[in-house]
Amino acid sequence: MKRKPLSSIIDLPEWKSLNKHAAVINREKKHLKYMIKEKDRLENFSLKRAGLFYDFSRQRVDAKAIKLLLNLAEARKVKELFKNMTDGEKVNTTENREALHTASRSFSDDPLFINGKDVMPEIYSVRKKIEEFASGIHSGEITGSTGKAFNHIVVIGIGGSYLGPEFVAAALKHLALKKMKIHFLSNVDINNFGEIASVIDPESTIWIVISKSYTTSETTANTNQAYEFMRQKGLDPAKHFVTVTSKGSPGDDTSNPVVASFHMFDFIGGRYSVTSAVGGVPLALYLGYDVFERFLKGAEEMDVHAKEAPPGENLPLVSALISVWNNNFLHYPAQAIIPYASPLSKLAPHIQQLNMESNGKSVTFNGESLGVSAGTIIFGEPGTNAQHSFFQLAHQGRPFPIDFIGVLNPCYGQYKNISKGVTNHQELWANLIAQPAALATGKDDADGAKHFPGNRPSSTILLTDLSPENIGRILSFYEAKTVYEAFIWGINPFDQFGVELGKKLASGIRSKMAEKNKNLEYSFLDADPITRFYLETLYPSSMNL
Amino acid sequence: MKRKPLSSIIDLPEWKSLNKHAAVINREKKHLKYMIKEKDRLENFSLKRAGLFYDFSRQRVDAKAIKLLLNLAEARKVKELFKNMTDGEKVNTTENREALHTASRSFSDDPLFINGKDVMPEIYSVRKKIEEFASGIHSGEITGSTGKAFNHIVVIGIGGSYLGPEFVAAALKHLALKKMKIHFLSNVDINNFGEIASVIDPESTIWIVISKSYTTSETTANTNQAYEFMRQKGLDPAKHFVTVTSKGSPGDDTSNPVVASFHMFDFIGGRYSVTSAVGGVPLALYLGYDVFERFLKGAEEMDVHAKEAPPGENLPLVSALISVWNNNFLHYPAQAIIPYASPLSKLAPHIQQLNMESNGKSVTFNGESLGVSAGTIIFGEPGTNAQHSFFQLAHQGRPFPIDFIGVLNPCYGQYKNISKGVTNHQELWANLIAQPAALATGKDDADGAKHFPGNRPSSTILLTDLSPENIGRILSFYEAKTVYEAFIWGINPFDQFGVELGKKLASGIRSKMAEKNKNLEYSFLDADPITRFYLETLYPSSMNL
Repeated sequence: MKRKPLSSIIDLPEWKSLNKHAAVINREKKHLKYMIKEKDRLENFSLKRAGLFYDFSRQRVDAKAIKLLLNLAEARKVKELFKNMTDGEKVNTTENREALHTASRSFSDDPLFINGKDVMPEIYSVRKKIEEFASGIHSGEITGSTGKAFNHIVVIGIGGSYLGPEFVAAALKHLALKKMKIHFLSNVDINNFGEIASVIDPESTIWIVISKSYTTSETTANTNQAYEFMRQKGLDPAKHFVTVTSKGSPGDDTSNPVVASFHMFDFIGGRYSVTSAVGGVPLALYLGYDVFERFLKGAEEMDVHAKEAPPGENLPLVSALISVWNNNFLHYPAQAIIPYASPLSKLAPHIQQLNMESNGKSVTFNGESLGVSAGTIIFGEPGTNAQHSFFQLAHQGRPFPIDFIGVLNPCYGQYKNISKGVTNHQELWANLIAQPAALATGKDDADGAKHFPGNRPSSTILLTDLSPENIGRILSFYEAKTVYEAFIWGINPFDQFGVELGKKLASGIRSKMAEKNKNLEYSFLDADPITRFYLETLYPSSMNL
Repeated sequence: MKRKPLSSIIDLPEWKSLNKHAAVINREKKHLKYMIKEKDRLENFSLKRAGLFYDFSRQRVDAKAIKLLLNLAEARKVKELFKNMTDGEKVNTTENREALHTASRSFSDDPLFINGKDVMPEIYSVRKKIEEFASGIHSGEITGSTGKAFNHIVVIGIGGSYLGPEFVAAALKHLALKKMKIHFLSNVDINNFGEIASVIDPESTIWIVISKSYTTSETTANTNQAYEFMRQKGLDPAKHFVTVTSKGSPGDDTSNPVVASFHMFDFIGGRYSVTSAVGGVPLALYLGYDVFERFLKGAEEMDVHAKEAPPGENLPLVSALISVWNNNFLHYPAQAIIPYASPLSKLAPHIQQLNMESNGKSVTFNGESLGVSAGTIIFGEPGTNAQHSFFQLAHQGRPFPIDFIGVLNPCYGQYKNISKGVTNHQELWANLIAQPAALATGKDDADGAKHFPGNRPSSTILLTDLSPENIGRILSFYEAKTVYEAFIWGINPFDQFGVELGKKLASGIRSKMAEKNKNLEYSFLDADPITRFYLETLYPSSMNL
């Protein structure tokens, strides 16, 4: 699909109106300490939809700001673009591909045509295959080469083949099947391999190699290392390796036998792939297929909401608009995600990838300079830990907007000891309630060191519990938010050309190393002086500092 | 000590000269792609001292920038202040305290007087006590209440009592004593407790409660929970709990018997305390006291360097100056720390706290408005993982400076399988070498989506290996860098008043919850509407979203 170029964003009247209104919001009378006291502030600036509660009453917006933002969404036709995406149009314009992650969790009976072919049957068939495979592993029907049941899962994959599955595995650990342990071998750093090798029982280990192209250097290196390791233990890799890869890739080659091979599709990008076989295979083995399916259903519910809800009631769209507002009009360069739930500790790293890789761009979808900053730095740690770490800066230093995430019912509700009059879970909530208030209101003090300027924006998102459905909902919420941000800016959130240059330079350096490995006489003289220094420092791999 | 107010930083001629020079650096001819090709660029912009190699050749500095920055350091008398700090002056002016973390790893025979009293004997005696205690645990002389040897260590502590020990434990895991497992119970979230409770063997578990005041709500709640848990298992807490706390705190109360109690000192702040008993007790149990002592010696070596090396050869000082340069003159709001070593995965979270809590301030040490932004957002993940996560934004979106960290010799050197002609460790290094080059040089492309602007600054720091000494060196490097930044700005890096307001509001909310726990009829009507909504949503702790 060739999209018609949109007008340059900064020339839009809607953009200009927002710029003007930002000056109003920056006035003292629009300090959050006043705005949050307005009548029905919470009711007017919160939404309860699709299983999530989203409170943006502590964002630096008033009714007019929201109205102007919704005008911008309208001008950018973002809901139309979102529908095009879920309908299978080639919204990934630079790579001429569809972006159909929503299909990977669809349970709809409707067909979905790409180039005249309904892709749903294949999606269902991969899901069915995962279900049967997981069942075979759990029943002990499928075992390793010595007949031992599998109980260690090692996922070999990096980036989009790693962060999503890790996030969900951590979030739903409380539902993990007894005896099943999961490990993530993502980094090519041999320490990552060495640590995993030191804790697994090779005979009962199943390795899941996840790579769309099956050519990612890190994943290839780790897979080869793992093959060699298993062979040295006298185990047959064909009985211990599973691949998740594109049809016809080197990992889908029948001359290289594996326990099973699962297909991933060209129309689902890595960082959006956790609801495909990428997440499906490891998560179904770790948690059971039923849990994985519940997770998909939660994601599907939020997808439908993101596509169908009117703009002003649309959680991902409203939050995307606020994100653009904070980024381009109030000029916050970063955003933190602070879940008040330890099992969500891997949410921020996952969204860090999802959002920064999707929207860390400077050009529109047709390659023109965007003219404003897209993307934002995303970081975060669970609360209350984060309070005792970097919240000093949040309160008194350089401000950044925060997504607070609260969970009403914890997983370990059986521990109810009372301390200072409250349970641990209540203590956690006391802090979850207090922080956005403190950030918004601040506190005047004649002593500069004890003065809190306040007016620091945040949202609060609530989940009832850490059910698979809710993890699916929050995942889909952030995916749709990311995509909506991109559609507002008019950038392509599905490519990642920015990672190519580093790969290319690394490949050149790798060739030199390979040459040196073959021929110790080889010198690095043709490298630039800085590169040469590092290469010479590594050979021999010891340095007297 | 009452320090004489420094001149306002923006009025300094040195500051003005830097501002002027930043305009020069922003010119196209000063693009990094040109600067890195200058003769002897690496030799002139790198330092090899105190066991570390620090390469700032890919920072956006020229000889004049460095000279002007050194002039600023001179004007701010930072080396004098650093010496005052290590000499035991009350450099923490707002709290009228010393900041003597350097003493906690000193092996010097010289006395160190505070208020006329030599504090070194007490420091040595705590260290000796830790050594003997660890030896008693490891020999099986000290056991739990059923006589079982200890092999699970649970550290209860948050913020400064958690992040430092966790960083070092992860970095030196390869040296952990066989069978010793360490767990960190930091978050008051009951999920954190529940997960640990589900994997430990209570009979062989030793809990180390770390809290200076012994009144931190999270730590108190977790400690009470753990006591109750042990009692319910029929185990005597007096035989399973250790405290690390201030002399005379509630945790140092002999009416509440524990296995042992270790003192932490008023003159060492939480986020600087990993070389005190805070890190000493858990790390000596986990790694052995000898490893802990080697770690201290590495830190001491860097301390001596930081104090004594001339400004232009002083690693922490030069890196602090570059940090201020990037922050205030080139206007980068964030900085990433990317170690190419999985075991350093907890370095960024630790430095995030260390730096953001120390320098996330807006006022000078005497409470006046600073007038420029201090502090920076710190984040990071290990490479190459980070490349496959958020480096898209680093290359083509909003730029941020990066500290790359390389380790010459990995811990698991026995795995040498060759993939694409190189070992995994070489593959890792190919990327470590390629990324700073790609960021600095960029690549022109007529296609906007494939254009790399380059000129993105980074430093590269090398360690020979993950020895305890090197972990000590890198820790002390970042501590001294943080302190030097603060001294350049003229702020106090040792207080954290910014965390107080949230604590105070949480305390008010906790009281309401405690009231409600006692009396279900209690209503939250006196709370502001937003707070009331959250409280009512939590009671009963279920919500129909």
